[in-house]
Amino acid sequence: MPITVAVDANGADLGPAEVAAGAADAAQQGVRVVLFGPAEEFGEVAEGIEVVDAPVSIAKAPDPVRASRATPDASIVLVTRAVAAGDADAFVSGGSTGPALAAALFNIKRATGIHRPALAIPVPVPGHPVTIVDVGANVEVRPEHLVQFGFMGAALAQVVLGIARPRVGLLSIGEEATKGTPLVVEAHAALRDRMAEGGTFDFVGNIEGNEVTSGKADVVVTDGFTGNVALKLMEGVSEEMLRQIRDVASSSRRAKAGGLLLRPALLEFREVIDPESAGGAYLLGLRRLGVVPHGRFSRRGIAQAILLAARAVEGDVVGRTHAALEAAHALRPARLSGSPSTVASP
Amino acid sequence: MPITVAVDANGADLGPAEVAAGAADAAQQGVRVVLFGPAEEFGEVAEGIEVVDAPVSIAKAPDPVRASRATPDASIVLVTRAVAAGDADAFVSGGSTGPALAAALFNIKRATGIHRPALAIPVPVPGHPVTIVDVGANVEVRPEHLVQFGFMGAALAQVVLGIARPRVGLLSIGEEATKGTPLVVEAHAALRDRMAEGGTFDFVGNIEGNEVTSGKADVVVTDGFTGNVALKLMEGVSEEMLRQIRDVASSSRRAKAGGLLLRPALLEFREVIDPESAGGAYLLGLRRLGVVPHGRFSRRGIAQAILLAARAVEGDVVGRTHAALEAAHALRPARLSGSPSTVASP
Repeated sequence: MPITVAVDANGADLGPAEVAAGAADAAQQGVRVVLFGPAEEFGEVAEGIEVVDAPVSIAKAPDPVRASRATPDASIVLVTRAVAAGDADAFVSGGSTGPALAAALFNIKRATGIHRPALAIPVPVPGHPVTIVDVGANVEVRPEHLVQFGFMGAALAQVVLGIARPRVGLLSIGEEATKGTPLVVEAHAALRDRMAEGGTFDFVGNIEGNEVTSGKADVVVTDGFTGNVALKLMEGVSEEMLRQIRDVASSSRRAKAGGLLLRPALLEFREVIDPESAGGAYLLGLRRLGVVPHGRFSRRGIAQAILLAARAVEGDVVGRTHAALEAAHALRPARLSGSPSTVASP
Repeated sequence: MPITVAVDANGADLGPAEVAAGAADAAQQGVRVVLFGPAEEFGEVAEGIEVVDAPVSIAKAPDPVRASRATPDASIVLVTRAVAAGDADAFVSGGSTGPALAAALFNIKRATGIHRPALAIPVPVPGHPVTIVDVGANVEVRPEHLVQFGFMGAALAQVVLGIARPRVGLLSIGEEATKGTPLVVEAHAALRDRMAEGGTFDFVGNIEGNEVTSGKADVVVTDGFTGNVALKLMEGVSEEMLRQIRDVASSSRRAKAGGLLLRPALLEFREVIDPESAGGAYLLGLRRLGVVPHGRFSRRGIAQAILLAARAVEGDVVGRTHAALEAAHALRPARLSGSPSTVASP
């Protein structure tokens, strides 16, 4: 039984045809794809792909929450409804984060016991990828949210990156447990206690900015504001460095000769650190998961997003997260209208 | 009349003698230095340097605030007192931020109308340095603090980097004025209004993580938590990239030959982006300013810190900041015990 991924072809910078091409690449590797979007722009459709004509796009809507509720025939709404109905196991959006987040929350809904969904990105640092969570879904959080982000990110790192026992760190401004904002200090203690109880991941304490790419932690937990700034800063600094090294390699005749010789190895390196290799941001904490590629991704990144979404389904990221949170007593207590006894549990 | 800088030789990773060597280099360029620290470790002292034997160090004190109050003979306490007494125009600490901050706040005191002092770092991005403020003095802030940080950073950029009309941006997670935490959204509006009124700097709106090194703004304003994470992340990513490019340049015989040819140009580049060239973090918002080099700096970075502290005094960063804040009606109103009329002013 192949895994089915619902894909929104709207919202990508390179257009729906590029998304369709990425979907074809993923289908060739055994994933069943249901492709939503303007069918007439897809061209000939590859085997293993089912097309649902859904030309309406809310990818650029200024108010994504309102648009996702008011536009039932928007492609991302249909995609998330297909997942909610069980017609697909996961979704991949065309690259527009806001509407994907809004439609998924509204239609797929939070998983039981989850406070807040979050966006996780596995950053391809050569030799030791690091998964940052949250990278923008929640600009303001409480300590218990950060605790759950740690569990979500760790389950993802287990399944998608194959890390048996992920080391989870908390982004802060000093090594000591007392460093950081009051929120971070409280989250530090809570993560330490809950992860000790959960037993499938290790909490390695605070991670400072310079340690994010050092391999000290496999998962770095932070609020969506700091995480978004950090992620984009990493991209910006890497790109700026590569650009500057290109400049350096044309600063003299000698340097030019060196740059020419180094070029193939540098291109290979560039490939390794290419954000497209990670597939995009994983939307975690819902009943089923989604992957949101960057808007500028090419077919390569889209195909990777679909393949990794399928891998996450296969490895049951959602179920693993729930089990680990349950074992650690870190699930959100049921509402008062439910069973009062569960409210009192930690 | 040469400018006098009081320097604390304690706290540097490489020891007091390295700080003394840096002081000698700065003195040679015309700055008068009063060097506090363990005199017996300084060796022969260069011309233009006055030594005050102050062997007691609180650089590693676990509670810097308490230590700076309880240790009147600590070198950093004596340094900041010398500045407060007018015996020196500015100070440079040996590299330990906490005690320098605590002692300076206690002894030199906030400048009139300043809510909170802040730490600013001019990051040496080739072609377009960017000054980040705050990089760690205030983990929690209010919008009016961020406004003042913008003015402080801009005055510093004018004097130390020679930027006639600095462009000030606010670190956030989207271009729109409505993006970010409620704090950031409020600070955006306040910075826009105040800078329009001040008239010496330009507010260029929100700066996303990937734009920090792009040259879009000369000054990037943020809270001390995000700023500290961002600064260290930039350092970490740059170092990781250089390390990885070194690896790339030994990955094959061809790459090795290229690396060898490129080496001199890369070393020159490394020199340009070396944090030591910026002298360290500037402590702004006090009656007189201080520079806190990184603990690991060599004599080069220490000398640079002393020279740039002198340049900041010469260019009157403190006076410029005050004048600009006053023109923008962004000074903190006087306390109720003062003149009630100033409390009502905007």
